[in-house]
Amino acid sequence: MILEAVELCIKAGRSKAFEAAFRQALPLVQSFDGFISYELQRCVDRENHYLLLIRWQTLQAHTEGFRLSPQYQQWKSLLHHFYDPFPNLWHYELVDLDS
Amino acid sequence: MILEAVELCIKAGRSKAFEAAFRQALPLVQSFDGFISYELQRCVDRENHYLLLIRWQTLQAHTEGFRLSPQYQQWKSLLHHFYDPFPNLWHYELVDLDS
Repeated sequence: MILEAVELCIKAGRSKAFEAAFRQALPLVQSFDGFISYELQRCVDRENHYLLLIRWQTLQAHTEGFRLSPQYQQWKSLLHHFYDPFPNLWHYELVDLDS
Repeated sequence: MILEAVELCIKAGRSKAFEAAFRQALPLVQSFDGFISYELQRCVDRENHYLLLIRWQTLQAHTEGFRLSPQYQQWKSLLHHFYDPFPNLWHYELVDLDS
């Protein structure tokens, strides 16, 4: 399993509109092959900041599947205009401390 | 529930030692009042980077409980010397998209 994590900074005053657009965009990713789950987390320390966590079955499900799909083009047009600056996105895998 | 998220950059060549120290430090936080769960995630895009996610029952369990405790002093001395630069730590709450 791969965790995609991206810290989002939303343009001032646009957080409510971003959340509404995110609700609209969500089925695009939720219905995609390899999607497992998501969390949209709102920062309590800084206004207009969010942490988006999406879990994928594999890295490729995100990078070669969703990111290259027509659904991603719709996701982009619904969401990317809210971001300032444009965010960095990283992938992670769980550290197994028992091994 | 509150999510504590912190992106860790570990000094070059120290990742394995950091993971071992983290394993040692973990019971300090796991046994603390208000702790729910943790994930230590290793970045697959950038060497020496991790995302630490800790879930707390309340913000205060972290900021006024753990951070002011003797256990945190032990946590610091086990882990903080691995970080370069010293990380920013943020708290988040889940956005309820159904409301």
